Amino acid sequence: MAQEQVVTPWEVSGSGAIDYDKLISQFGCEKLEQRLIDRVVKLTGKRAHTFLRRGVFFAHRDFEKVLDSYEKGEKFYLYTGRGPSSEALHLGHLIPFMFTKYLQDAFKVPLVIQLTDDEKCMWKNLSVEETKRLARENAKDIIACGFDISRTFIFSDFQYVGRGFYENMITIAKSVTFNQVKGIFGFDGESHIGKIFFPAVQAAPSFPTSFPHLFGTKSKIKCLIPCAIDQDPYFRMTRDVAPRLGYQKPALIESRFFPALQGESGKMSASDTNSAIYVKDTQKEIKKKIANYALSGGGDTKELQRKNGANLKVDIPFKYLTFFLDDDEELERIRDEYGSGRMLTGEIKNILSDVLWKMVEQHQQARLAVTEEMVDAFMAPREMPFMFEK
Amino acid sequence: MAQEQVVTPWEVSGSGAIDYDKLISQFGCEKLEQRLIDRVVKLTGKRAHTFLRRGVFFAHRDFEKVLDSYEKGEKFYLYTGRGPSSEALHLGHLIPFMFTKYLQDAFKVPLVIQLTDDEKCMWKNLSVEETKRLARENAKDIIACGFDISRTFIFSDFQYVGRGFYENMITIAKSVTFNQVKGIFGFDGESHIGKIFFPAVQAAPSFPTSFPHLFGTKSKIKCLIPCAIDQDPYFRMTRDVAPRLGYQKPALIESRFFPALQGESGKMSASDTNSAIYVKDTQKEIKKKIANYALSGGGDTKELQRKNGANLKVDIPFKYLTFFLDDDEELERIRDEYGSGRMLTGEIKNILSDVLWKMVEQHQQARLAVTEEMVDAFMAPREMPFMFEK
Repeated sequence: MAQEQVVTPWEVSGSGAIDYDKLISQFGCEKLEQRLIDRVVKLTGKRAHTFLRRGVFFAHRDFEKVLDSYEKGEKFYLYTGRGPSSEALHLGHLIPFMFTKYLQDAFKVPLVIQLTDDEKCMWKNLSVEETKRLARENAKDIIACGFDISRTFIFSDFQYVGRGFYENMITIAKSVTFNQVKGIFGFDGESHIGKIFFPAVQAAPSFPTSFPHLFGTKSKIKCLIPCAIDQDPYFRMTRDVAPRLGYQKPALIESRFFPALQGESGKMSASDTNSAIYVKDTQKEIKKKIANYALSGGGDTKELQRKNGANLKVDIPFKYLTFFLDDDEELERIRDEYGSGRMLTGEIKNILSDVLWKMVEQHQQARLAVTEEMVDAFMAPREMPFMFEK
Repeated sequence: MAQEQVVTPWEVSGSGAIDYDKLISQFGCEKLEQRLIDRVVKLTGKRAHTFLRRGVFFAHRDFEKVLDSYEKGEKFYLYTGRGPSSEALHLGHLIPFMFTKYLQDAFKVPLVIQLTDDEKCMWKNLSVEETKRLARENAKDIIACGFDISRTFIFSDFQYVGRGFYENMITIAKSVTFNQVKGIFGFDGESHIGKIFFPAVQAAPSFPTSFPHLFGTKSKIKCLIPCAIDQDPYFRMTRDVAPRLGYQKPALIESRFFPALQGESGKMSASDTNSAIYVKDTQKEIKKKIANYALSGGGDTKELQRKNGANLKVDIPFKYLTFFLDDDEELERIRDEYGSGRMLTGEIKNILSDVLWKMVEQHQQARLAVTEEMVDAFMAPREMPFMFEK
């Protein structure tokens, strides 16, 4: 009997690869259809992002409503985040940020990024000081993704929680029972009360009044949340309480997980350094990890590969290229060459190493340029007066 | 079979009067012995407060340790609070504040007063705006008790939660499980997650790092909490987690409940206006309430009173005088006269009306003098540089 697949913000497990279609029906979200991607292109005048063309972002809730009202001239804001549990970000961590940057550039909308240092202090049992430090370090990697400082507010909970934000935490919390979070997140009697309350903290940025310096008292502004699909439970809960509190339900656009080098049966793990490419890895490390650990769908020998070609369904180098090789024609060429056996495993691994190093090197240079002053500037609660320009 | 007495922060019930000795052993606190009161007098050079002489504050936890270290020159701070669920404060509400003012004057120590508008927003289902307004209105009544502005910080949770305070909320919350708060407070699966988390909010002011503007990073300063004994469950929990977080256990000095006019079987109720004397009542209303509603232990007729005297154990006018008539000799005279039947019920009721009106009138005048600017000043997070003077 197949093991039931379990996807929560803290656990992704199951027998073999995640069944994303099944997840859509389990969670009750919708498939991101091509016509919606076409509308994004039409509305923004920009080419669809790689992650849209390749189905990396594949599911949504109410994204169409956001596009409808955007078309009528109504702006929205973006909300994404990260739990800062380690200094070492891997490529999977960058995916929501790369995509969010694209959305920000395409729609010219304000963006709030929540660093849940409080969450990690509780779940990982790290000290307050350590999680605050990690939040700031992670902010540098996020800033290095190229966000527009004039439209981006990055905050950590330990730094920012209070006032309008806290008021929303409390009004959300009083609308959700223990039995509900038990059902959604799997908490039990031995869960500590910080965990039980935390969903209200992650829900709060979905409501514009959590950011009075950005939105004043405007309570009807729509929020769009780009995130990996494991975060869906938080926002299912948020969407459930929103109308009762007089807010719009936040919309979501949700991604698949970026697979581990060892194969596609979950998320990359921050604790196994050989399962992932990190943004701090050297060119040599990247080459070596791909050579040694990337699960290949190619033939076991050169001869078998020439004869049968590669199984692209399990091949990690090819999968990684679908995420990060922007050139559609080149990807099709590789699919064809490698799938048919004309290209060898060593060759596709070399191509991937080059693509990833180019991206990582650029990230490292951008991160080096991030000063403490820039972090302060991104994290300062401040007005963004031009944010509702057309 | 006698109904079990139940005392929690939200419920005080049982058959007849509260058995305070039983409560001490149920809760595991200690009786406030005369030798401790004598020590307070010796240490402060002030006469013991009426509430100490009359046993209104009757129980404690670690109060002796606070006195020990105070004697060695180590200051502490005071923490008390109020849940602002109504505009109308009754005399029972004033008791912890009157006593705290005495402690502040006698020991010359800083004081923090928490207004739990977040709690009342959740428990009473009031709007955020309404509870914030009530917090500010209640602050005026508290200020009218005569606190020293140079040593007193009044804050509402909606206004102040954040930073060091929020960090303590989270570190407390991660040390307490749902099963624990279920056991202490009687929560269940249908309790909302705000309630479940709230004990961490009420616990946080017990730790000095919640007030960096007052205590910087000093984490070893002792905290003394004057409160009614129904608040004990919060601080039992707080004392349990304190050592694990590197803090001192807060000390407590705990009062009995101020009885309703109808008799001593619980606290006064803010919802039944005829059960209590309010600080906004007129002289006429006070006279009328005492005449009509105050449970008398006196004889049913003038003749019976003259013959048998009054039962002082149930007589509310006499009980109220033990709280608020400071003159020991006069109280003894009344005990003697009224107990023996030489004084009639109408006479003791008149005496009480005069005593209460004098107190209420003074409060009303003091409250009238409280300006919005004074409220702002008391509620501004600010340094209190002289607070550790000897």
